[in-house]
Amino acid sequence: MGLLQPNDEDFMRDAYREAEKAFEKDEIPVGAVIACNNQVIARAHNLTEQLKDVTAHAEMQAFTAASDYLGSKFLEECTLYVTLEPCPMCAGAAFWSRIGRLVYGAEDEKRGYTLYNENLLHPSTKVKSGVMANESKTLLQEFFRKKRK
Amino acid sequence: MGLLQPNDEDFMRDAYREAEKAFEKDEIPVGAVIACNNQVIARAHNLTEQLKDVTAHAEMQAFTAASDYLGSKFLEECTLYVTLEPCPMCAGAAFWSRIGRLVYGAEDEKRGYTLYNENLLHPSTKVKSGVMANESKTLLQEFFRKKRK
Repeated sequence: MGLLQPNDEDFMRDAYREAEKAFEKDEIPVGAVIACNNQVIARAHNLTEQLKDVTAHAEMQAFTAASDYLGSKFLEECTLYVTLEPCPMCAGAAFWSRIGRLVYGAEDEKRGYTLYNENLLHPSTKVKSGVMANESKTLLQEFFRKKRK
Repeated sequence: MGLLQPNDEDFMRDAYREAEKAFEKDEIPVGAVIACNNQVIARAHNLTEQLKDVTAHAEMQAFTAASDYLGSKFLEECTLYVTLEPCPMCAGAAFWSRIGRLVYGAEDEKRGYTLYNENLLHPSTKVKSGVMANESKTLLQEFFRKKRK
């Protein structure tokens, strides 16, 4: 890659690797990273089953870790990459963090925040969707297929 | 009180005491408790400034603590008492927890979940509002008056 800056696909690939870690732990495979100045400052994957904690979505852990790293609860200069469209809980947390950008992969047709109210996000947060959407959706489908067996 | 069971006001008074602790720490004064079988199993107050973490709302901490206590991420038999109407993040967490009842005090005219979509909560969650609303609202007003000085 030489001196090339990483792009959205590169960061989403990092988030996807986190989703794969969740898959291996028998968790619904969703992964997230937060990048700031082209550097990943937080990575996390869904751990709701292992921690028995509904708040342990990948995004929530990533917000906490990124704020801890930066020493700031606000993340205006950061981008959240997440393999699945955030739910209202995670979109609500994104609002409070004032995150600069949200980039997500697959749409969540059951609990995606856009199904409830697009204004759940902060008005200053820019949104991009569909990055590596197929891969992320396939991983989720594979997980639920395995669970039904 | 003798053999009387505690009622919603009693539990809300516990939540209010948590809000007072937040006030003393210069945090926006919101407190929460979760009760199960007429017993408080989790108490928490807003710590977003101290922890520099937007996810550290009273309710979020209470969900995590209650699930840890019960060893279950689901809280169908529990009631969340919180001094202020939950925001979408906390309502979204309440959805995932399937909490049996939500009892809140003051309305949040800026970020209350009902302003966005009442279906943010789980359809099986019963809601009661306005319990100790005046006291909780007064505490919040006092906090913001002090901040503006």
